[in-house]
Amino acid sequence: MASPPTGTRPDEVRRHNRAALLRRLHVDGPCTRAALATELGLNRSTIKTLVDGLAEADLVVERIPSQRHGAGRPSLLVVPRPKAAMVLAVDVGVEQLTVAAVGIGGAVLGRRRWGLVRGEVRPADVVQRVAWARRELAAELGGEPTAVGVSVPGTARRSDGRVHEAPNLHWADVPLGDLLTAALRLPVQVGNDADLGALAEHTRGAARDAADAVFVTADVGVGGGVISGGASLRGTAGSAGELGHMVVRPDGRQCYCGCRGCWETEVGEDAVREALGLPPDAGRPAILAELRDMADEPERAARRLAGVLDWLALGLANVVNVLAPELVLLGGLLAALPPRLIDQVGAVVRRRSMVARASGELRVVAATLGAEAALIGAAELAFEPVLAAL
Amino acid sequence: MASPPTGTRPDEVRRHNRAALLRRLHVDGPCTRAALATELGLNRSTIKTLVDGLAEADLVVERIPSQRHGAGRPSLLVVPRPKAAMVLAVDVGVEQLTVAAVGIGGAVLGRRRWGLVRGEVRPADVVQRVAWARRELAAELGGEPTAVGVSVPGTARRSDGRVHEAPNLHWADVPLGDLLTAALRLPVQVGNDADLGALAEHTRGAARDAADAVFVTADVGVGGGVISGGASLRGTAGSAGELGHMVVRPDGRQCYCGCRGCWETEVGEDAVREALGLPPDAGRPAILAELRDMADEPERAARRLAGVLDWLALGLANVVNVLAPELVLLGGLLAALPPRLIDQVGAVVRRRSMVARASGELRVVAATLGAEAALIGAAELAFEPVLAAL
Repeated sequence: MASPPTGTRPDEVRRHNRAALLRRLHVDGPCTRAALATELGLNRSTIKTLVDGLAEADLVVERIPSQRHGAGRPSLLVVPRPKAAMVLAVDVGVEQLTVAAVGIGGAVLGRRRWGLVRGEVRPADVVQRVAWARRELAAELGGEPTAVGVSVPGTARRSDGRVHEAPNLHWADVPLGDLLTAALRLPVQVGNDADLGALAEHTRGAARDAADAVFVTADVGVGGGVISGGASLRGTAGSAGELGHMVVRPDGRQCYCGCRGCWETEVGEDAVREALGLPPDAGRPAILAELRDMADEPERAARRLAGVLDWLALGLANVVNVLAPELVLLGGLLAALPPRLIDQVGAVVRRRSMVARASGELRVVAATLGAEAALIGAAELAFEPVLAAL
Repeated sequence: MASPPTGTRPDEVRRHNRAALLRRLHVDGPCTRAALATELGLNRSTIKTLVDGLAEADLVVERIPSQRHGAGRPSLLVVPRPKAAMVLAVDVGVEQLTVAAVGIGGAVLGRRRWGLVRGEVRPADVVQRVAWARRELAAELGGEPTAVGVSVPGTARRSDGRVHEAPNLHWADVPLGDLLTAALRLPVQVGNDADLGALAEHTRGAARDAADAVFVTADVGVGGGVISGGASLRGTAGSAGELGHMVVRPDGRQCYCGCRGCWETEVGEDAVREALGLPPDAGRPAILAELRDMADEPERAARRLAGVLDWLALGLANVVNVLAPELVLLGGLLAALPPRLIDQVGAVVRRRSMVARASGELRVVAATLGAEAALIGAAELAFEPVLAAL
């Protein structure tokens, strides 16, 4: 059915409104009662009852705003208490593991980080370190997290956090969600790093005001995350958005996934390194330094990166024709492209994509959260059910 | 923000529940009060109040079910009255125009149809015929439609029904929504034919039980419609799903859209005609006859259609990697492929697509509503706001 018809019981209304209010404070920060009433479309007495309830539960405090507008009694500012609900955010990268405690409002209250040897990351080690970090952070902050969000560079099943393929970790079919749940005795959700990057940029980054946005990030692999109609596009088993394995060049390079000419093989780290004429062992810092050096010579950069830019534009035009975003965010290595080249790619996509021509509304820009995106997204993934249940 | 926090006022609850109940009856047909209570998760007294209200407004009637289960007093069957709310569904095809009056429950209560000369369809003629059909059907049925849904073979802007490009009609930038609104003095919504086909298959066809489905249809062009998380994927300006202009073969045939090797040029009517060795002037009936003749010789068919099937599978694997549907429906010419070939294409896609391998859940099948899909979808487009406001 086009929209599943389910009824609403009156007792659900208060819970819904309480969650909406908390979510508003979590995403956009402190707010006066008056502004909350306007933004949520509720009357002031309803807001008062809700805020009183949240204050009683120690989730918010109220204070007189420092800046007063107009005459009369000032509307009290409702401020969430970061430590009132904490989650653990875990970013399993190819070369590092980060664990952070994140509070209501999105502040990182503490973190631990480890360097990893590429290709030698064992799930058991990850679990052990996360468990250790959780104990350390709980002691440091004087409070326990209530849920865990995990980012992995691979396909993860939403229902149970099973990692199906994470090629750059050399993981296949790893029950990461179950392992972490057993070790931490907390609800655990696992998501793809690019999906969570998209969620982060949508919640706290460059895509805040975009209802339809696509986040494309190139690191070792190329990943994508899609925001559609204001929410994460999930697809069956939560596995949508594997943009890196869209075939753009059927006679292109062989990809580990079995296809030839995946977007990942044509615009990922290897392709960029090769286009720049760097040796095969040149690491990420060397590539980034080379891109930075070319920022003032966009024409030379465009010549050297011509192939990569062509396949980037072709793939983006495909993505735009399928998903019709108003905004495309480039992350990872792609965010480091000289700004003039990003603009040029955007112009090509606007010209080539029938959908962009029809809507007249497409921007292609660099993402803003950088390497933190997946971690911030992991925290938001964990917070979604937490905020709804507080 | 990931999910826009808006509050709910208690008076919205009753309206929401009334709309949910009506929608349930519209989509799935007559139902006992007891089953409605279970399905909608509402108690029986709430259901009684809602049904009494609908009966008072003459939208439903109640009757004793003919088949009785168990002992005791039978639960009354709630039956929607088709003529209590009618919409006008319009399908502007490349070679014919269809106008139908559709009642609650989806029954076509009456229709008018005209043949059109390909490439010589003028917007003013369409508007005139729709206005004429509306008068005729209203007289015939003894009731007026309250809203209009229109399907066009092109990109249409959701907000005002402006048709941006409908290449096979030779239309560009036609304010069809405004023209029809002015002529009919009714709310008009315009959608892309493939998007509406997807909506129809999801509401009343093969994708009824699929929360994530993709409908790909090949006629003169190739179009796509996407159901994601149980609802139509719209994108900015409602223009998502232009799957036909995904480039699958960068060195392929020139497409009118400006790109080379669009999916449409590789698997559309022209490509199928050419693969079958039919002359350029062979029409749709000749192509369909040839496909039908080969149904019992799948190996010969596979050889003759090899190129088309390869590009079909490559494009579908891309679509599956991006959108992660559980179901792909092939419509139009593609639904006429020999069933064995559709199965083979499905097997290739399941093997090639990383997302299909991860989810383990992808079926590729022929659509079931045939040439009626766009018309049925246009009716559903019109019904959405009507049912919510009755």
